[in-house]
Amino acid sequence: MKILLVNGPSLSLLGTREPSIYGTQTLAQIVEGTARYAASKGVQVDALQSDAEGDIAHALCAARGAYAGVIINPAAYTHTSVAIRDAIAACGLPVVEVHLSNTHRREAFRHASLTAPVCVGQIMGFGAAGYLLAVDALLNVMKTENG
Amino acid sequence: MKILLVNGPSLSLLGTREPSIYGTQTLAQIVEGTARYAASKGVQVDALQSDAEGDIAHALCAARGAYAGVIINPAAYTHTSVAIRDAIAACGLPVVEVHLSNTHRREAFRHASLTAPVCVGQIMGFGAAGYLLAVDALLNVMKTENG
Amino acid sequence: MKILLVNGPSLSLLGTREPSIYGTQTLAQIVEGTARYAASKGVQVDALQSDAEGDIAHALCAARGAYAGVIINPAAYTHTSVAIRDAIAACGLPVVEVHLSNTHRREAFRHASLTAPVCVGQIMGFGAAGYLLAVDALLNVMKTENG
Amino acid sequence: MKILLVNGPSLSLLGTREPSIYGTQTLAQIVEGTARYAASKGVQVDALQSDAEGDIAHALCAARGAYAGVIINPAAYTHTSVAIRDAIAACGLPVVEVHLSNTHRREAFRHASLTAPVCVGQIMGFGAAGYLLAVDALLNVMKTENG
Amino acid sequence: MKILLVNGPSLSLLGTREPSIYGTQTLAQIVEGTARYAASKGVQVDALQSDAEGDIAHALCAARGAYAGVIINPAAYTHTSVAIRDAIAACGLPVVEVHLSNTHRREAFRHASLTAPVCVGQIMGFGAAGYLLAVDALLNVMKTENG
Amino acid sequence: MKILLVNGPSLSLLGTREPSIYGTQTLAQIVEGTARYAASKGVQVDALQSDAEGDIAHALCAARGAYAGVIINPAAYTHTSVAIRDAIAACGLPVVEVHLSNTHRREAFRHASLTAPVCVGQIMGFGAAGYLLAVDALLNVMKTENG
Amino acid sequence: MKILLVNGPSLSLLGTREPSIYGTQTLAQIVEGTARYAASKGVQVDALQSDAEGDIAHALCAARGAYAGVIINPAAYTHTSVAIRDAIAACGLPVVEVHLSNTHRREAFRHASLTAPVCVGQIMGFGAAGYLLAVDALLNVMKTENG
Amino acid sequence: MKILLVNGPSLSLLGTREPSIYGTQTLAQIVEGTARYAASKGVQVDALQSDAEGDIAHALCAARGAYAGVIINPAAYTHTSVAIRDAIAACGLPVVEVHLSNTHRREAFRHASLTAPVCVGQIMGFGAAGYLLAVDALLNVMKTENG
Amino acid sequence: MKILLVNGPSLSLLGTREPSIYGTQTLAQIVEGTARYAASKGVQVDALQSDAEGDIAHALCAARGAYAGVIINPAAYTHTSVAIRDAIAACGLPVVEVHLSNTHRREAFRHASLTAPVCVGQIMGFGAAGYLLAVDALLNVMKTENG
Amino acid sequence: MKILLVNGPSLSLLGTREPSIYGTQTLAQIVEGTARYAASKGVQVDALQSDAEGDIAHALCAARGAYAGVIINPAAYTHTSVAIRDAIAACGLPVVEVHLSNTHRREAFRHASLTAPVCVGQIMGFGAAGYLLAVDALLNVMKTENG
Amino acid sequence: MKILLVNGPSLSLLGTREPSIYGTQTLAQIVEGTARYAASKGVQVDALQSDAEGDIAHALCAARGAYAGVIINPAAYTHTSVAIRDAIAACGLPVVEVHLSNTHRREAFRHASLTAPVCVGQIMGFGAAGYLLAVDALLNVMKTENG
Amino acid sequence: MKILLVNGPSLSLLGTREPSIYGTQTLAQIVEGTARYAASKGVQVDALQSDAEGDIAHALCAARGAYAGVIINPAAYTHTSVAIRDAIAACGLPVVEVHLSNTHRREAFRHASLTAPVCVGQIMGFGAAGYLLAVDALLNVMKTENG
Repeated sequence: MKILLVNGPSLSLLGTREPSIYGTQTLAQIVEGTARYAASKGVQVDALQSDAEGDIAHALCAARGAYAGVIINPAAYTHTSVAIRDAIAACGLPVVEVHLSNTHRREAFRHASLTAPVCVGQIMGFGAAGYLLAVDALLNVMKTENG
Repeated sequence: MKILLVNGPSLSLLGTREPSIYGTQTLAQIVEGTARYAASKGVQVDALQSDAEGDIAHALCAARGAYAGVIINPAAYTHTSVAIRDAIAACGLPVVEVHLSNTHRREAFRHASLTAPVCVGQIMGFGAAGYLLAVDALLNVMKTENG
Repeated sequence: MKILLVNGPSLSLLGTREPSIYGTQTLAQIVEGTARYAASKGVQVDALQSDAEGDIAHALCAARGAYAGVIINPAAYTHTSVAIRDAIAACGLPVVEVHLSNTHRREAFRHASLTAPVCVGQIMGFGAAGYLLAVDALLNVMKTENG
Repeated sequence: MKILLVNGPSLSLLGTREPSIYGTQTLAQIVEGTARYAASKGVQVDALQSDAEGDIAHALCAARGAYAGVIINPAAYTHTSVAIRDAIAACGLPVVEVHLSNTHRREAFRHASLTAPVCVGQIMGFGAAGYLLAVDALLNVMKTENG
Repeated sequence: MKILLVNGPSLSLLGTREPSIYGTQTLAQIVEGTARYAASKGVQVDALQSDAEGDIAHALCAARGAYAGVIINPAAYTHTSVAIRDAIAACGLPVVEVHLSNTHRREAFRHASLTAPVCVGQIMGFGAAGYLLAVDALLNVMKTENG
Repeated sequence: MKILLVNGPSLSLLGTREPSIYGTQTLAQIVEGTARYAASKGVQVDALQSDAEGDIAHALCAARGAYAGVIINPAAYTHTSVAIRDAIAACGLPVVEVHLSNTHRREAFRHASLTAPVCVGQIMGFGAAGYLLAVDALLNVMKTENG
Repeated sequence: MKILLVNGPSLSLLGTREPSIYGTQTLAQIVEGTARYAASKGVQVDALQSDAEGDIAHALCAARGAYAGVIINPAAYTHTSVAIRDAIAACGLPVVEVHLSNTHRREAFRHASLTAPVCVGQIMGFGAAGYLLAVDALLNVMKTENG
Repeated sequence: MKILLVNGPSLSLLGTREPSIYGTQTLAQIVEGTARYAASKGVQVDALQSDAEGDIAHALCAARGAYAGVIINPAAYTHTSVAIRDAIAACGLPVVEVHLSNTHRREAFRHASLTAPVCVGQIMGFGAAGYLLAVDALLNVMKTENG
Repeated sequence: MKILLVNGPSLSLLGTREPSIYGTQTLAQIVEGTARYAASKGVQVDALQSDAEGDIAHALCAARGAYAGVIINPAAYTHTSVAIRDAIAACGLPVVEVHLSNTHRREAFRHASLTAPVCVGQIMGFGAAGYLLAVDALLNVMKTENG
Repeated sequence: MKILLVNGPSLSLLGTREPSIYGTQTLAQIVEGTARYAASKGVQVDALQSDAEGDIAHALCAARGAYAGVIINPAAYTHTSVAIRDAIAACGLPVVEVHLSNTHRREAFRHASLTAPVCVGQIMGFGAAGYLLAVDALLNVMKTENG
Repeated sequence: MKILLVNGPSLSLLGTREPSIYGTQTLAQIVEGTARYAASKGVQVDALQSDAEGDIAHALCAARGAYAGVIINPAAYTHTSVAIRDAIAACGLPVVEVHLSNTHRREAFRHASLTAPVCVGQIMGFGAAGYLLAVDALLNVMKTENG
Repeated sequence: MKILLVNGPSLSLLGTREPSIYGTQTLAQIVEGTARYAASKGVQVDALQSDAEGDIAHALCAARGAYAGVIINPAAYTHTSVAIRDAIAACGLPVVEVHLSNTHRREAFRHASLTAPVCVGQIMGFGAAGYLLAVDALLNVMKTENG
């Protein structure tokens, strides 16, 4: 069983960019930690990082049939992308949205999420640990749907 | 005489994605039907589908001089893309906007169109048949402008 | 098979009123052109023009059972009439909304349509040619529903 | 003693139009039931149904002196008509507003009432039974005012 | 058969508080009048007045199974309480909302009702008489549901 | 030379309706006074009062060619009628808007005028005297346009 | 009997500034024309032009007792000055607001008037002729108040 | 080490209330499951359910010093309670907000959270499983803060 | 002569909670200081602190007849409670609103006060000293009313 | 030690202007009363009244170094002046804002204060007595800052 | 060739006022630096600083004919003054708007500029260096217009 | 020392697209002119034009460490891209925003800039000359930061 892990724009700079908000781990470390944790639960993780809305929407469309579920941190596109929202709805997979920071503490335009209404659920504010929670959450959803 | 047919994000999943909203035809079938209909009117259709805002904006800029007109279903970008709006205005061609569904029946954020004000006109709610209406509409516009 | 063609307020002045926006054809010419085109498809058109919201709502209520579909240009009432909206919903017929101009290019209060959500679809910006497109669209809808 | 019962646009289709919202009684049945109930209380009902805002406003203006009170279901005009609001205020009679459905459960534009602030009170959500409650309410108001 | 009558904050001061808005009857008189009227219809009334949102929400949750229906005047909580709204929805009983005054004539923040969308219907503006109308309305709803 | 004087809904009750806002003159007296004043300037006045938006829009469309100018008190339709706005623009005549009361002192929804932007100008707050000022204003406009 | 004529900011450039909007008369010509017209009615005009909100507010406060009424064109301050509004209310005199252009045809921020609600009435859109209408309007108000 | 688990209004009806939204587990089952899971991590859970905003705010104030952290499902108060928000901030403990449903899929007034900005983070949409994720999240936060 | 001093939610944590905003005095110290100051003016203070909206509303209703005036710091309920607003209006006593901090410097939702319009006046931003100012203000109001 | 007392536009008419809102004392009486009260506390008051925003902003800028604190009633400029706000912030002195009336009871545009966020605090609704409270408040602030 | 340099309210305190936002140069230093730089390009600078909206509007009106262009830092009036906006438009000169700070980083009410739409362009965020850029920009505009 | 020059969507059509708004220079000419000017100051310019939001965000992330500063004309993305905003913040370089036209003169959706708050400053309205001003501005910022 495979799941897709999607990380959005500017997350490639994690660990160097504003560590007081985003923590000191690099994206590679977070992805590796997530994959290792998922592997311990018997699930393989394919990871994608892109700064491009179209690439992310495309990957979600292509995930249909290829993956059992998706974990996504849409970063900036959370607040502006109807295209990614539509791709989440169109791919027909359970999708869990995760954010490193608590977006409700930041600028007002980060309080609304265009993608959340078409995801199963949302986890935010727990830093890198949120990715592991997302693995648990997604596995639970898939088990319930298949159960 | 050639026209450009542009289809936006997630439309590659047509026929499989939410058929109650978008119908059961695949995008390939819609494009082929549109091209055949246009051919019967003596017009050649080049078709492009992309999930990327930049690709679509780029194609519109490049259409200047290469095509006599454009039919576009900007899908999700209808509601968020000033870049595609500017490219439509900048390309200097008559552009007809088409939507498979009646966007006024859907979420509030789909009621406004950033692209419509710079298009000649808009056709929505008639499913795949709307593309053929768009061919007729565009030919009529080009005939009037040249007449 | 008969369809009803409804034209709203001030459209009686077409051809004389602001021709740069609405074109030079009179309403009589547009109605006649529409009827002739529909006749060529085997459909009879009854036409009504009224400046009164109540008359239009009444005609739509009365159309139930008497017509197979409706083409309507609600003009000013597009943006203010819940009564016509309710009558469209209540008549139970497929209704196609058409506008001569591209209302998205005009004053902000013309960007929203109270009637569009209860119509099958909308065609705007193609002048008198839009009425012929509406005939095609409506016939297609009726064929699909009956098919 | 006579009261006026005013029913607004599209209510002529009651019983056939969207029965899940409006119930299965026809307007004739509702009016007759209301009149019979009022008669049992010694009050005569004159009934008017119109799809036209102007007719309703006119009837309210003309009611001054001719009736002791008014029951009105303004239907769609509840949300758009300043003219009916002004006529209610101008006629100087106690007016009770009644709605078959609970408008707060429907589209957002039906949540506000332009007419309610100038009526004595409002009864909504009880279907045809609401008209009988309105008779009781109006009689009570008239008794209090005269008492 | 028993129904629950809930009166919200500050209603304990009725008869002394702003009589030009709320009338001169005390809450005890209104409750007694309502109970007597309901008794004449074969229905027992249990009455509760509380200034506390939580108490009212709690009583509604507890009403499930214990009562056949509820009449509620949420007073100030009409405009601010999602908790009471959720309790009305959660209790699964038919609930009728009543207000002594016509809230549409008062401050703008009193024009919206958070509770009305989950009630069967609303009666406002008829003073103490509105409670008797609410009894009739509720009995009618219960008869229809059971019929 | 003839001008058209249009009075909108509920104005037929002038003199009896809320005299503290609208004064004690009847509409007949105001119209007669206006006509006499205009006659003294060599201008004939035809007067129309209607409670119906459609009648007023229709009269404005029909005024084209028949009158040299229009004085209109749209009353309630000032704030809701795009149809009358469009008819004013379509008739191609100079139109002066007049109001008995100062609408800026009243409810917020009376502060905006849909018709004012297509009129030459607006006169409000001077009671019946405003109609005579409107005659002077209109004559001045016509003289300037013809001068 | 004396009245005060107040002209607001930038009006000193009349005749040279944007004549398509404001006409070709200078302010001196308008003031002289207004004074001559008022003199013919037996009323003396004192005139003030200032670019400063405080000066205008001060002059209005000082007008109390010294003048029988005021004609004011607050120009830009119409839309921003609570100070002038308060001074109009505080001076206790009848004040007529006049504008050369029809402000409803211009930018949205010019559609609202902070000063109009405390004036007797408003005259706009008639160019320099509006000042003479304002004299007539003010005299009529003073006559009515004294009558 | 002890943590406090707070459940807000109407959650006492879980399992019976709208199971399609909230699932079929009772609150007792969810609390017991959460406590057992936390116990397996060496943490004791004290649980509180209340329909009253004041009780919840009070419990949070009292938690200062008595608990190492808080898990809260504020239910309806998420969207209306500044008092609970202030109590979360005032108690000085790490607080994790959890919701059974994905509130972004529901009514617009449920999309904003007054409490989220003062919590560490938020978990929503995973039903009862969300409480176990919240335990993990909270333990991780406490470990990080103490580490 | 007795006055009632009401302190709202979370104020029990004063002195420990965010001292940079609220100062270092405990609520007990503030209440004692206020009582001592009032005693020096011959007035007795009864004090109440509650985290519950309903308790505060109830205390205000009960204050009618028992106290000569009220000083209230509604804290969080300032911004959300119509119930407390109504209780202030219903109790018929002069009420002075006091805040420790300057709420205009904080989050936007703290800039509006639902309670202020029904209080005599408001004092904010002076920390514990504001309570003594409120005593002076209230005594002055009572003297004026009785004078 | 000297403090500056600034009174804004139209306050020169106090005592004559709308006494039901502003009381019967003249500004001279209020200023004299304030100065005498301050003198009894060992503080000298310099007073300024101006109808001009620029004069008040200028005086505040000039107060830097010359005064120990400021009491200001910005009157109309409270709601419109960023210049006075900036001058308050720029002068670096403690500033107390005072209003004679309770502005929350008046027009909506008077509910917001541009100046309050940069003042220490605000006192409103206590008439002339508010100035004496402001002296106490300011002295307390200065003592605390210097303490 | 001469240009006018206008500095708005509170800028006289530059160098002492909030240096972290505005820098440590005094206004005299900035003006002298700007004049010297302009002189090196063959242009003379006349400088004006005022805290008064009316003085600035007046100076702009008077600049017509006397200067070849204007550099203006309207400071607080940027966000509130229609009078200065109108004066910029009325003077008919090219005007460059400059701000020391990046207003988009500050309070929301500083994000909009009433004056920018009538200026040639805007330069902000570069401190005192922005004035020299403005000189270059203005000279370039004048050269282009004259070229 | 190298700086990066980024040009956004549709700017490739400069010189041909709407020259009345954007001028007649091609992008190549503008870039070459900017590079030559920067070279004269001892700075090398690398230039990038892209229609894709993701490419621009990616280039900004990659600029970290490779460049000393950035000049960006985000064109359409100014108003819609949180991704580019985040990339500007994340790259840690001084960034200057430049626009050919004065966006405050255009459609309302172009008045707000998502990117400006994270740039050092903004220059707009001076056509191609604005790029040279941006070079000066950026060099000044870098000198100040390093000084």
